[in-house]
Amino acid sequence: MTIVVQKYGGSSLADADKIRDVARRVATSRDKGSDVVVVLSAMGKTTDSLITLAQQIADQPDDRELDVLLSTGELISCTLMAMALKSMGYEAISLSGAQAGIQTDTRYSRARIVSVEGKRIVKELHSGKIVIVAGFQGITEDMDITTLGRGGSDTTAVALAIALKADICEIYTDVKGVYTADPRIVTDARQLKDIGYDEMLEMATYGAKVMHSRAVELGGLYNMPILVASTFSEDPGTLIHGGSEMEVRNKVRAIVHDLNVAKVTIQGVPDKPGIASSIFDPLARDGISVDTIVQNASVDRVTDLTFTVAKSDLNRAMRVVEPVANTIGARGCVADSKLGKVSIVGTGMQNAPGYAARMFKSLYEKGINIELITTSEIRITCIIDESRVNDAILALHKTFDMDKVEDAVKLS
Amino acid sequence: MTIVVQKYGGSSLADADKIRDVARRVATSRDKGSDVVVVLSAMGKTTDSLITLAQQIADQPDDRELDVLLSTGELISCTLMAMALKSMGYEAISLSGAQAGIQTDTRYSRARIVSVEGKRIVKELHSGKIVIVAGFQGITEDMDITTLGRGGSDTTAVALAIALKADICEIYTDVKGVYTADPRIVTDARQLKDIGYDEMLEMATYGAKVMHSRAVELGGLYNMPILVASTFSEDPGTLIHGGSEMEVRNKVRAIVHDLNVAKVTIQGVPDKPGIASSIFDPLARDGISVDTIVQNASVDRVTDLTFTVAKSDLNRAMRVVEPVANTIGARGCVADSKLGKVSIVGTGMQNAPGYAARMFKSLYEKGINIELITTSEIRITCIIDESRVNDAILALHKTFDMDKVEDAVKLS
Repeated sequence: MTIVVQKYGGSSLADADKIRDVARRVATSRDKGSDVVVVLSAMGKTTDSLITLAQQIADQPDDRELDVLLSTGELISCTLMAMALKSMGYEAISLSGAQAGIQTDTRYSRARIVSVEGKRIVKELHSGKIVIVAGFQGITEDMDITTLGRGGSDTTAVALAIALKADICEIYTDVKGVYTADPRIVTDARQLKDIGYDEMLEMATYGAKVMHSRAVELGGLYNMPILVASTFSEDPGTLIHGGSEMEVRNKVRAIVHDLNVAKVTIQGVPDKPGIASSIFDPLARDGISVDTIVQNASVDRVTDLTFTVAKSDLNRAMRVVEPVANTIGARGCVADSKLGKVSIVGTGMQNAPGYAARMFKSLYEKGINIELITTSEIRITCIIDESRVNDAILALHKTFDMDKVEDAVKLS
Repeated sequence: MTIVVQKYGGSSLADADKIRDVARRVATSRDKGSDVVVVLSAMGKTTDSLITLAQQIADQPDDRELDVLLSTGELISCTLMAMALKSMGYEAISLSGAQAGIQTDTRYSRARIVSVEGKRIVKELHSGKIVIVAGFQGITEDMDITTLGRGGSDTTAVALAIALKADICEIYTDVKGVYTADPRIVTDARQLKDIGYDEMLEMATYGAKVMHSRAVELGGLYNMPILVASTFSEDPGTLIHGGSEMEVRNKVRAIVHDLNVAKVTIQGVPDKPGIASSIFDPLARDGISVDTIVQNASVDRVTDLTFTVAKSDLNRAMRVVEPVANTIGARGCVADSKLGKVSIVGTGMQNAPGYAARMFKSLYEKGINIELITTSEIRITCIIDESRVNDAILALHKTFDMDKVEDAVKLS
């Protein structure tokens, strides 16, 4: 029998009516003859409310306790889903992350899945049940509950699909799939029928909100097909996979953007070995994630060093970097938080030159100044003024003929 | 090192401020040098809200799922308590029923504790932590979550105290202790300094709300001293124990009452062997708990059979009994739901005659008609019209000089 893993997010489970709607979707899949494993997030804003409650109790809620507290949100939605399915006449059972065999390391609030022991799920599937698993949570060797951090429930779903050798992992959410660009900005953005793991990974990392990069990476590693589709429609969604037809098709697949970018420039840095590590080691120790790093060619053995961080980390980054800049004899530090990133992504670009040039020209023609450039084999990213991000997306969507992408779905 | 188990109920944990207040009480106990294990109920009305949510999903929520759903309430209060204690500088850890080793049978929503495997708690206590345990829940052999039903958290606390060989189990609630009668009815009711397990058990069974009979019974079985006291005051409370001084002291210890009483009379029952079981077997199968049963002396091989049930069970009981009455050739069934129970309780009564007579005379002098009488060795119960229950309590409190009880605390 084929196994399907379906994941539903919090906005699909916001109240009793929505939970019953999802139960009907799950039941339909079961009626089609597959074994169904359902992974759920917490209902609506439950997780936020629990965090607020914790903050009313303690300024810095204990990590271990916070994880147990947050894990209750998913237990609640899973038991309600099982009740809904049973009341519709389907056999169903809810399992906590621990019961589902999701083993993690001990890093509370951002645990990594170490292994999935699927015996219990298989037993329940064999007895004819729909199995509802609490997303976002796992258990350590010492039987302590952990949560997986951002993108946790998607990661649970993909990990389960791999462990159970499912045919597909379906991620149901409040958007219809993956688009050539944000449809709120580009009215003629098109929904992609499919996309490669690498492309989706770059898109997720560089601003696409539809799926967290972690789950995509895991899916790519084990070649598990992931369908992203809407809970609220019957549209086919976008399939993330590693299919072979990808090599021959359209070059630029999507434009993604991210407004959560700030830049720090350390001016007049003496150009000596070891300088970079004296700056970036303390940032890493403070848990500040540094994205792009650019070092200008040195003039008179003095250079400018620029890097970007998330806007929310800018103040902390400045507090770490300023004393270091002083110690190493730099001239000073300058911050700029009014920036955004625009990226074009597509595996077709890697062996076809000229995309970077076309991108820069398109932005230049709109009078958009490029602050920094970074690239991977399948992505080109420009960091620009945040006020020009929408203009840039619109221009690039036109430049690369993305409103005419043939293997995509026109928005109704 | 001595171990103290403290249990706090939902009204003591209704919001963040109250949780911090309880944390301060727990910390004070820790400061006095004991190892402290805290058992908590769910915050305020959490359990009721979760039940409402389940009923929005399904008319008859699945038992197993409902137990997992309800168990989240206690997890939430426990994690918040651990956070509060840690933020005050104390080492603390929350444990679910499963983690605390509370093994139960598989009767969802009314599971019984089979054993307590205290290793994890002992380990955490040894490492200097205050251990916070989720009350009302346990785990089956198959790792499924169960809840213990009414009185569950009290039972968890007493069971843990026994398993850990604690010095005392302290039950903190919204009343100051056990009284000679309900102080809302009898203004000169007095709080008892102590009371025996048997007496408390009769009181709990016959209407005293302060503790559930189940936890008292368990305490008595293992001779674990139980202190009942208020979360909101420093008053000493009432100690439930099996101390020897009980034999020599006051006879009637308390008057308890219960308004949740209904009576069914089956008239003209043929007096044959097997008749009683043909009536009470179907009631038991339907899960209806029958309390008092009275069969009148038979006249011409025909008798009246009367029994009492909880008011909430009356309609179901009538639906079960009416066809049976027909089948066995009885004349008919009559129900009366406007009844109440008044009981006097005290171990001193068992070898001292005359208490029943004094009780009946006291009620007779107030013009209160007795419908049914039941007794145990240490209790006499009269079932009377519900409108006269308060009058009866006041009269009996005076008759037995309970406002002058010497080993009790005068209400301030």
